[in-house]
Amino acid sequence: MAFILEGIVTTLDADQRIHIAPMGPAVDRQMERLMLRPFKTAQTGRNLKAHPEGVFHVTDDVLLLARAALGKLDQLPALNPASHVRGSIISDACRFYEFRVRSVDDSDDRSRMEAEVVHFGRLRDFVGFNRAKHAVVEAAILATRTDFLPLADIQKEFQKLRVIVLKTGGDQEKAAFAFLEEHLARTARSKEAVS
Amino acid sequence: MAFILEGIVTTLDADQRIHIAPMGPAVDRQMERLMLRPFKTAQTGRNLKAHPEGVFHVTDDVLLLARAALGKLDQLPALNPASHVRGSIISDACRFYEFRVRSVDDSDDRSRMEAEVVHFGRLRDFVGFNRAKHAVVEAAILATRTDFLPLADIQKEFQKLRVIVLKTGGDQEKAAFAFLEEHLARTARSKEAVS
Repeated sequence: MAFILEGIVTTLDADQRIHIAPMGPAVDRQMERLMLRPFKTAQTGRNLKAHPEGVFHVTDDVLLLARAALGKLDQLPALNPASHVRGSIISDACRFYEFRVRSVDDSDDRSRMEAEVVHFGRLRDFVGFNRAKHAVVEAAILATRTDFLPLADIQKEFQKLRVIVLKTGGDQEKAAFAFLEEHLARTARSKEAVS
Repeated sequence: MAFILEGIVTTLDADQRIHIAPMGPAVDRQMERLMLRPFKTAQTGRNLKAHPEGVFHVTDDVLLLARAALGKLDQLPALNPASHVRGSIISDACRFYEFRVRSVDDSDDRSRMEAEVVHFGRLRDFVGFNRAKHAVVEAAILATRTDFLPLADIQKEFQKLRVIVLKTGGDQEKAAFAFLEEHLARTARSKEAVS
């Protein structure tokens, strides 16, 4: 595998309900194989055990990414049925990779699920390097780590990322960052209330 | 203008020599207009004054970006002639936007050059969110600021970025980061020698 690509995976649960989660699989340059590393306890991991098919999406929609990272999608994005697996494609994604899990290694906290891409599609261009979008990605990762990283460190990092978002971002990036900041503020208040 | 997009601009100097430089223009969502902000003293700005046409490229090639940022392209990348302006297209870019400068405002240190996109082309997909690629972009920006940012701050930031590059990057990202680290180490030695 060549590098880690951050995107969004859709899977189906036992009741055929769609689950949407950010995922950073290791991929090869040809994007023919994905190594997914879901936590065994996470919904995506459980779903792929029951139904080993899903769709990995490359997208630059950081608002969707931030909401999915915190499990706070108020509503599902527009979806289309996948054609080569049983699953769903996010209509506004840039590219999608329908995959089938070929092997599962559960010896670790995080499963190692090797998946084969069985179908690929292109929907629109990925915008390119926008520092604000990436600042949101980094902020979203930090926001999911409030349980084990010092809150003060996360807040300090958010301050730096905020400067980049305001300087280089558009409406979507600002809305996504504000959403993450609200989450962080809520977390800070609840930690204070506990201590 | 909607947001800032980091890419690479090719321009021509008075002797028709190609100049390649990173540039983060403000762009509209449709990518029909670019607001370029070159420093008046910079080659790109001087070139566009003499010949107000060029090509803006969206690319995920961070090794090219890092080298261009430090003005250390050992050799030019493969190029093709532009079709609607007098200029050159980087063959390995993801997308290119041939532009013509329509107005120049020189009242500031950095010119404000409003450009119209007169032709657009798509060559290959932009990979998507790879944290290592973006870490290289941030490192390249820092590496161009050693004259006015405290070196210790930059070095500290590089240490954090390095972790991301090693964890999520491939060969290209690691090579680009190593190149920037060497530059930073050289800068540190020369500053020590002076002080």
